[in-house]
Amino acid sequence: MGPEGPGPLFMTLFRGLSAFPITPADAQGQVNTLALRSLLDRLVEADVDSIGLLGSTGSYAYLSRFERRRAVDAAIDQVAGRLPVMVGIGALRTDDAIAFGQDARDAGADALLLAPMSYIPLTDDEVFEHFKAVARATDLPLCIYDNPAATHFSFKPSLVGRLAQIPTIVALKSPAPGADAVIRHLEESRAVTYPGFSSGYSVDRHAMEAMLGGGDAWYSVLGGLFPEPCMQILRAVHAGEAAQARLLNARLEPLWSLFTEFSSLRVVYAAASLLGLCKGMPPRPILPLPDEARQRIGEALDLLGLV
Amino acid sequence: MGPEGPGPLFMTLFRGLSAFPITPADAQGQVNTLALRSLLDRLVEADVDSIGLLGSTGSYAYLSRFERRRAVDAAIDQVAGRLPVMVGIGALRTDDAIAFGQDARDAGADALLLAPMSYIPLTDDEVFEHFKAVARATDLPLCIYDNPAATHFSFKPSLVGRLAQIPTIVALKSPAPGADAVIRHLEESRAVTYPGFSSGYSVDRHAMEAMLGGGDAWYSVLGGLFPEPCMQILRAVHAGEAAQARLLNARLEPLWSLFTEFSSLRVVYAAASLLGLCKGMPPRPILPLPDEARQRIGEALDLLGLV
Repeated sequence: MGPEGPGPLFMTLFRGLSAFPITPADAQGQVNTLALRSLLDRLVEADVDSIGLLGSTGSYAYLSRFERRRAVDAAIDQVAGRLPVMVGIGALRTDDAIAFGQDARDAGADALLLAPMSYIPLTDDEVFEHFKAVARATDLPLCIYDNPAATHFSFKPSLVGRLAQIPTIVALKSPAPGADAVIRHLEESRAVTYPGFSSGYSVDRHAMEAMLGGGDAWYSVLGGLFPEPCMQILRAVHAGEAAQARLLNARLEPLWSLFTEFSSLRVVYAAASLLGLCKGMPPRPILPLPDEARQRIGEALDLLGLV
Repeated sequence: MGPEGPGPLFMTLFRGLSAFPITPADAQGQVNTLALRSLLDRLVEADVDSIGLLGSTGSYAYLSRFERRRAVDAAIDQVAGRLPVMVGIGALRTDDAIAFGQDARDAGADALLLAPMSYIPLTDDEVFEHFKAVARATDLPLCIYDNPAATHFSFKPSLVGRLAQIPTIVALKSPAPGADAVIRHLEESRAVTYPGFSSGYSVDRHAMEAMLGGGDAWYSVLGGLFPEPCMQILRAVHAGEAAQARLLNARLEPLWSLFTEFSSLRVVYAAASLLGLCKGMPPRPILPLPDEARQRIGEALDLLGLV
């Protein structure tokens, strides 16, 4: 965190629902800031706890430095301090991740999210030094982004423990394993970090169980487009109504199935275009889903009253 | 291939020993073209069959478009038509891969090597469309680069068969499985392609068995720095001296073990610096090997008479 210490918005950073919108862009990778602003309005209106800009679903890995900066500038302007904004800054090169982090800081981001993108598989020491270099050069609260399906690197508790000793590294975003495994994962994270260090979860289908088990944050793809059903679940969790939370989560099963079948990114791109919010073109080589899949997504959204 | 059809160099493209040098660069990712030229001189002198510039070991994934172009320009100038030069053009975005391919073509490359880099896992159809778009836009002979450890995408024979129907896609570079599995892999490739389509192998330790079994090319990391011991093995293969080829390959076991332990990229970076050919700094976050490992590499090279 900066020399002034954490501001008031820090209270909901890495806590509750962190909503991850897509970053609408054209075929050349130019960000459609108007469409992005509309998506952000939905999140501000729903009063989510924070925004995760340029996450994996926000296709950060496919955007140039210039376009990432355009997206951050538009987001900071649109959100206007009403919610904390965390920005994904992952890159294959350490110097690029530093540059993206400094850009985000200079643009007014509240926090950074760093995934260890890899091509040549990385060792624990390499990832440690990478995070240390970025943390030192950026000086914003930083969340460790564990997403092995995309980065091809898995954080062991021992590495999380080492990283948590770096003053600005204050949170961990892990993919939630199934309901039976998430509590043990959370205990492992707690065991290697200090009280107040945030352990949060992605993978929407399973995140609810993690929150019931005491997880700090739900990093949500669905919440980036449809925040309300996620907020309902979280309200039940926070009220201690586990049965109600599970019921609400089970209602979303048609969407969770589609997420598993096609990937959450492809499904939310299709959903955003069905809502008329953007053209729904993920960055090539990723293709828009075929009509038959789009129709099934439309039916699921309709069933849930989301369109 | 271009409108003039294949030139004389095409005869050794995708055949025999294709040597993959590292791309020396500084901490900011600026290519050291002088050091690159020295590395290429060693390959021209050894009369390898082709050069694989900007392969995975050539750290293409970590270099900007500008620096990739600088590397290709320097290589084409230094090699001066004495050997065919194939250039790696992989990128996370389809439009970037097209641009890198067109740059390489414009610089005078003889062939392209395309790996399906991924962040969000790709489907077969997405990889097919990606390759089709790049092949159409570049019009040079193109080699499919299957490297699941780095790209996190595995080519099934059915997809190779579809891609082989695109006129300029004429070769496949696969990681050689162990000696017991490579012949079946080669048969599967042959079954879905046409006579003359090249099936070649990387993973130095196992490539020799693939060549004994009739593989078309050995895409070699060791050969990018030490071509002679690889050429010796290939000469034995081509003379039908299987026992001698296996003996020569077994002699290199100390290096193959180090490749497995530290990755071939880290080992050749260390070896190149031990030879005084460059500073041996892989792109961060990849770290130079610690002194103890460097010493073991030096001892292995010494034992083999390579330093």
